[in-house]
Formats: sequence, structure tokens, C-alpha cells
Amino acid sequence: MDLNSDLGEGFGTWRLGDDAALLDIVTSANIACGFHAGDPRTLLSTCERAVTRGVAIGAQVGYRDLPGFGRRFIDYEPADLVADVLYQLAALDGLARVAGGRVRYVKPHGALYNAIVSHERQAAAVVEAISRYDTRLPVLHLPGSVFSDVASAAGLRVVAEAFADRGYTPDGTLVSRRSPGAIIEDPELVAERMVRLVLAGELVAVDGTPISVRAESICVHGDTPGAVTMARTVAKALADAGVHLESFTAS
Amino acid sequence: MDLNSDLGEGFGTWRLGDDAALLDIVTSANIACGFHAGDPRTLLSTCERAVTRGVAIGAQVGYRDLPGFGRRFIDYEPADLVADVLYQLAALDGLARVAGGRVRYVKPHGALYNAIVSHERQAAAVVEAISRYDTRLPVLHLPGSVFSDVASAAGLRVVAEAFADRGYTPDGTLVSRRSPGAIIEDPELVAERMVRLVLAGELVAVDGTPISVRAESICVHGDTPGAVTMARTVAKALADAGVHLESFTAS
Amino acid sequence: MDLNSDLGEGFGTWRLGDDAALLDIVTSANIACGFHAGDPRTLLSTCERAVTRGVAIGAQVGYRDLPGFGRRFIDYEPADLVADVLYQLAALDGLARVAGGRVRYVKPHGALYNAIVSHERQAAAVVEAISRYDTRLPVLHLPGSVFSDVASAAGLRVVAEAFADRGYTPDGTLVSRRSPGAIIEDPELVAERMVRLVLAGELVAVDGTPISVRAESICVHGDTPGAVTMARTVAKALADAGVHLESFTAS
Amino acid sequence: MDLNSDLGEGFGTWRLGDDAALLDIVTSANIACGFHAGDPRTLLSTCERAVTRGVAIGAQVGYRDLPGFGRRFIDYEPADLVADVLYQLAALDGLARVAGGRVRYVKPHGALYNAIVSHERQAAAVVEAISRYDTRLPVLHLPGSVFSDVASAAGLRVVAEAFADRGYTPDGTLVSRRSPGAIIEDPELVAERMVRLVLAGELVAVDGTPISVRAESICVHGDTPGAVTMARTVAKALADAGVHLESFTAS
Repeated sequence: MDLNSDLGEGFGTWRLGDDAALLDIVTSANIACGFHAGDPRTLLSTCERAVTRGVAIGAQVGYRDLPGFGRRFIDYEPADLVADVLYQLAALDGLARVAGGRVRYVKPHGALYNAIVSHERQAAAVVEAISRYDTRLPVLHLPGSVFSDVASAAGLRVVAEAFADRGYTPDGTLVSRRSPGAIIEDPELVAERMVRLVLAGELVAVDGTPISVRAESICVHGDTPGAVTMARTVAKALADAGVHLESFTAS
Repeated sequence: MDLNSDLGEGFGTWRLGDDAALLDIVTSANIACGFHAGDPRTLLSTCERAVTRGVAIGAQVGYRDLPGFGRRFIDYEPADLVADVLYQLAALDGLARVAGGRVRYVKPHGALYNAIVSHERQAAAVVEAISRYDTRLPVLHLPGSVFSDVASAAGLRVVAEAFADRGYTPDGTLVSRRSPGAIIEDPELVAERMVRLVLAGELVAVDGTPISVRAESICVHGDTPGAVTMARTVAKALADAGVHLESFTAS
Repeated sequence: MDLNSDLGEGFGTWRLGDDAALLDIVTSANIACGFHAGDPRTLLSTCERAVTRGVAIGAQVGYRDLPGFGRRFIDYEPADLVADVLYQLAALDGLARVAGGRVRYVKPHGALYNAIVSHERQAAAVVEAISRYDTRLPVLHLPGSVFSDVASAAGLRVVAEAFADRGYTPDGTLVSRRSPGAIIEDPELVAERMVRLVLAGELVAVDGTPISVRAESICVHGDTPGAVTMARTVAKALADAGVHLESFTAS
Repeated sequence: MDLNSDLGEGFGTWRLGDDAALLDIVTSANIACGFHAGDPRTLLSTCERAVTRGVAIGAQVGYRDLPGFGRRFIDYEPADLVADVLYQLAALDGLARVAGGRVRYVKPHGALYNAIVSHERQAAAVVEAISRYDTRLPVLHLPGSVFSDVASAAGLRVVAEAFADRGYTPDGTLVSRRSPGAIIEDPELVAERMVRLVLAGELVAVDGTPISVRAESICVHGDTPGAVTMARTVAKALADAGVHLESFTAS
């Protein structure tokens, strides 16, 4: 099983999250690409650290919106989105190569990630960009999303991810951040859920229903208080349960 | 002989220069990389047009300064400059590859170009970035500059360029833009000077002295009124004089 | 009757539209505020020219999106939109005061203008910002929009505007830019329509139906080819028909 | 005596320093204006908190350089610097007024602050901007700087400041950050020095020489680890020595 987390999300003098600690825990690093976060110097050193620790580098492409941290939907024209994604992907891949690695997968960030769960034109634009750059790059997304479907249809490998600390509805989607049960804060409970997910392929939804969830990667958040503790607790519980942690890019 | 010009320097809704016309004239295109100018969609389509016309793509890396168009010296820390140059170079190279080409050389832009005529730490930072990215990339600069020397010492090929419409001092440097004779506006005169430069290796300095000038490439400006006429006149005069125009990257 | 146009929309080295020519024609200048366009130096000199010519200065507040020129919907949190509008409004008002004038009205720009035709939370945020800044500032918008209603309810004066070169549907809204008849390109026809609008309060809709349209200001575009000719033709036709042109802020 | 500190220096999701704690200690808040740091929402709420606590609001104008946090010298054209300073000053003043206060003084930030110690054209540009905005605004700077002289000559009130945790040379300038003794880290020692400065008008230079230093305000840093402890220790020591702390804008 793979653990992924968002990294490289500082900007200039501003820091975010404890990248060094997370790189000792996760197996895949979704590294920002400069459009929602990440100045080039931070991105280069984050790539270097990821290579040193054997963590797979993913390009976390996002909207061009530093003030909004890529968390606001932007109604891009598709041709602009294709080019913005290509530019970010190429920039991070270049830094990764200079650091001795390369970009191994793509995970869209924030509002872009959420938009392409259902937004067909933006989903198609992101798929077009990745396909034009390198058709061998897997993408990380929610199973059943429009983006996952479009990417699969275009021949990209789609890697299903689950979110460690998020509540799920009975039909397998995430509980909205505005509803109760959206976030699970207790690291032990989260760890227990993730062990069950990995071993049995199921999670308990917010209403108590057990549901079947498929995941090849688990996302642990990097920028919240307690993020490191949460990630470490999940990783330890999985290891104790005999689960081998390695990046999905290894397979 | 090679003719180079700055291209791809619009940004979003804002256009600059007549890229289409210039791409029919020049043999090397210094394409902006997004930090002083150039949104990704413009950069991608400029790369595509350059590939179609067989014009060599160069990365015109610059300071991160859209409001100042990269024309203001910025006192970067070297590590930031290394990373900013790498990021730009990688981004443009990725777009060029998607367009069916690749970045064939590097020409620093504006205030960065001017700074590294003499600024040792910034010159070294730009050389470090290019060397880490790809040691086979030639660089375009003024003969005798600190940057040229540092780049040569690092094993990079340095291509000497002359400026078509600029006046020269008797010691072979450019007349300052604040002094009389800095800019030569008559296309016929400029064309005549360039023919003499290519055939005889000399130019007439601002005080009337003939001076020896070495150049493997001639820069024609793209963003001034009359730029296209100037470039076309120079290209035609060289052709009429039997000079074969092709990118220095071909040799 | 008032004629308004968008001005000050360059950025750094990039120019847009012929501000000097338009300032001799229009009676109200919607000056950009730096978030979708307009560097401070351009904004200051545009304010100075507007004051010299006796043209009323309006703040054209927009989304923070230079690469998209404010033409892409952004899903702002209301508190961010309130603050972004306040900041822009205050900045332009300060420049206008230094130039010897002041901001006399507010006209939202681009995608923000379009969004608040129907987007209640964003409309309320813009109204909140203007109300907190100065409740005496009129706002320019489409009659019947959510923004117009919310602004009226908050006690702001709402000034109805019509668009000179846009087609109208039989129910008085604008024909979508994606449909035929959206833009009327013939200056004479546009001028004739505007004379009829001012004298008779009516326009002919895209299907031939005469419709009643209320307008205290007419918007002429500034950034299209032929913009100046169009504006001049409309202004002349109105003057020839005995219509006195002056800013709505005078009344 | 006045204590000043830099505040409002977050940007979007990124936070910097403990503004709430510092606002309980200092008497003057140098609030960022959006060009080196400070999104409008942060700036508005920082102004609101400053007004609530009776802390004087100063405009901390800086270079337009978010990636460099305004800490890199930029070789601005004077007309651009005038306009950029005016824009920032007006924007913050508008937010301050909406919050129930107003901008009471100006303190240049970072590399701009340092540049105008000696850079005459930039010093003159900043003075021109402030004079055009409001000649009654005092400016905070180092005694003896070019900026202080130019501002005085233009009729602006110049308020001399000392830096709590910085070492001084025997001739009264700051020890360069690259030299030993530049920063004094022990809060008790810093507090002791500041009491002596206020009561006796002297400081001990880095070589042990007592020197005479004039200060109407003491700058305590806000963005370093231990900043709050340092500020609190200095404030308490001054209070214990019978020094009344209030903003210089009160006199």
C-alpha cells in the first residue's frame, strides 16, 4: 500500500507543513508545481529530499492562484488549462531530474481535484495535458470520478486513492467539508479504519454502514496541526498489521 | 549566420510584437519562459509555430518580474536564481518537446542579461543552472562578458552575438541606452552594417572608428515599432550578399 | 446621457486600447484597479488624464487574476471578495485623489460583473465592500441583476447601463457571446440604435421585436479593433440628435 | 517611547508571526500593504485588531516582490516606485479607515528600507509619494539616512528608530547581518540595552564603546522564533523602569 501526502507547499519566506518529517513516513510525495504554491528553490530541495529518501515524486498540478492556494474553482478555458498543466508538469519534472529522479505520477490539487470529479471539460483538459506530456504517467484520483473515467479512456493508468481522515457517505463519496463527520480527528480511529480498508477493502460510512472502498493509495494530509502524528500513526498501524508500504509507482 | 529575436512575450490578453512575422525571418527564437513574460498557452503555441517553421527554440530565462518585464535588476540570492532558471528552462523545454522540438540554447533576458555582463555571483548561478540541466546547451551572450567567461570555463558552448540596431563604442561594448547613438533606426543603415559585420568581421563605432567584432548570431529586436521591417531588411541584405542564414544550433 | 468605457487596462510594458482617444469621447472612465489589469503607474496617469479632461473616474474592481484578465469566474469566499474589492477601491481612490479627483462610482469588471448578475453571495460581498467604503458611491450594472437589487436594498444608487454593441434578447438580457447576434459591428447601426435607446427608451431585439430598455449610461468597449471609431460614431450621433453627454455622476 | 513591529505579513493560506500577541505589546504596527506580503483580508483584519487595541497603524510599503518577500533590492524606475508606494499607501489607508482608524505613519520595508539609507533616487521617490498622499504623515527610519534627510527637507516629520536586537557599530550604524554581533539573541540583554537607550540615550557598540543614539521608536521583530518573548521582555523592562509606552503618533 502507498501513502501519499502534499509537500513543497511553502512559498518564499512562507513555510507550510513539516516536509522533512512527512518524507520519512510517506511513500509518494505530491509536490506542488509553483502555481498554487511552491517557489522553485523549495521545489528543487523537496525533490532532492524525496530522491534521497526513496519517495516517489508526483506532480501536484493546480490552478494558477497563489492568493487562493488553488482552493477556489476557476472557470478556465480548456486550452489555458492544458497549457498551465503542461507547464507545471514540465517544470517539476525538470527539477526532479536535476535532483536525480523524475516525476512518476500526477495528482491534481485542491479545487482542480474537486472540479474534475464532475467537470468534463476541465477533466478532459487535464488528461490531454498529461497524455501529451507522457502517456506512461499514472494519475491519482477518486474512483468513479469523471477524471478517472476520461483518463482511463485515454489509456492512462488510474490509481484509486482513499482519504485517511475523511468521512465517507454510504454511496462511497466524501462527506462534504460543510457537513458533520467530514473530518475524523482521532489518529487511532483513522489508523484503525485504514487497516480495515487495506485488509478488508471496506470502510464504515458516516451513518454506520460498512461500504466497499477500493484504494491503491491513502492520502494523509500534510498541512494541518497534528498532520505528522496522524501520518505516523497510520503508517505504524499498517506496518503492525503486516502491510508493506511502498509507492504504487513501484508496481 | 544566425538571426535571433525575442518571442512569446505576451501575457494573457496582452500581446507584444508580431511573432508570426518574425518567425518567417529569424533562425533562432528566444522564447520567454513565463517569469518576465509568456503565459503557458502563448509559450506552447509559439513553440509549435517555431517547430513548424524550423526555427531553433531558445529559452529566454529572466527575473521573476512580470510588472517590470524583467528589465529591472533584482538582487537575487544565488540559490534562488539557480532554481528560478532551472524551473523556467525545464518548463519551456517541456512545452518545446510537446510541440515536437526541444530547447536548443539559452539566452538570458533583459536586466539579467545585462547584470551578468559583470555580476559574478549571478553569472555563476545562471551557469550552474544550465550546467545542471544539460551541459550540451549553448548560451548566447556578449563576447567578453563575465557570463561568457564563466560559461566557457564550465564547459558550455558560448555563442557570441551582436545587436543589429545598437551603436558600439570604440572598445566594442554597446553604447548606453542613455547616450546618443545608442539606437540606429534606419533599416538600410543597419542592414549595411550587418553585411559588413558578417563579411568583414567589423563594425563602425559611434565615433567613426572601425572595430573588429566577432558574432555567430545577430539579435534583431521584436517588440519595437518597425521591428519586422528592420528584421526583414537585415535578412534580405544578408541573403543578397550571399550569406546563408541558419541557426547556430545547426553547427 | 453618459458614455462609459474601460480604461487603464495595460500592465507594465503591455498596453491595451487607446486610452487617450477614448478619454476625449467618454464621460465616465471605468479605470482598472490592479487586480485584473493596471499597474499603479498606468493607473495614476490614467486618473490624471481623466481629471484633466473632466471625465468621471469609476473603480473597475475585478477578480485577482492577471493571467485571465479577470474574465474567468473564481469561486471566492465572500470575506476574501469583500476585502479584495475594498483594497482595489481604496487604492484607486487614493490615486484619483492624488490626481485631483476621486472615485465617483464603481463598476465591477469582466467575470465578476457577469457572476453577480445572478450569484447572490458574491453580489452581497461586492455591495458590502462598497457600502463599508462609502455609501454615496453609485454602482453601474445591468437593470434587473441580483447585484442591482442587493445594492438598491442596501441604499446604494444603482445606475442602469446598456451596451452599445451588444445584441439583446426579447426579454431584455444580452445575447450570449456564443450565439449569433451577440456583437453588432457596424458603427452606424450601433449609433442609430443608441439614439433610439436614448430618445425613445427602446432597442430592437435580436429577433426583431422592439423592447423597452432603461439606461442612464451606455458602455462602449475600449479594447477591440475599431473601438475608438465605434465610440466616436455613437457620441457624434447622440450629439447630432441633440443629446447632451455628461457623466451620470453629475446628477 | 514607542515600540513598533511588522505585522500583517501572511499571504493567503500562509501565516507569519503571532500578530495577536504582538498587538498586545507594541504601540505602533507596521502593517504590510500587499506588495511584499499581506492579502487584503489579512490586512483588513489586522487593521481591525490594531484599532481595537489602540495600536497606531503604519503603512509598511515595499517592493512588489512576493516571492522575495521584499527583501531583494529591485532597481525600480523612480516613476514606478512613486506609483507603487502611492497605491500601497492608499490601499492600506482605505482598509484602516473602514476598520475605524487610518494610516498614521509610513515605514518602508525590507530591501527598500535598506536601499534608501543611501539610494538617492529611490529615497526621493518614496518621499514624493508620501508627500503627494499626505504631508502630515510621519516616516520612520534610521537617523542620518538619505531618506531621513530628503524627507525632512520635504517637510515630513522624521521619527528616528532604533532596533532592539541589532548590534551597532561605533559610528552608530547597524552591524551588517553578515558580521558577528549583528543580532543579539538574549532577551534580557536586549531589554537592558533598550532601558539604557531610553533613559540615557546611549547604547554599547559591538566593540564595547558607548555611543549616543537618538530614538523615538524601538523596532522589535515579529517574524523570528522568540519574537513575542523578546518584545514582551523589552516592554516589561521599560515599564518597570518607569517608561511610558505610547505611539509616537500621539505626540
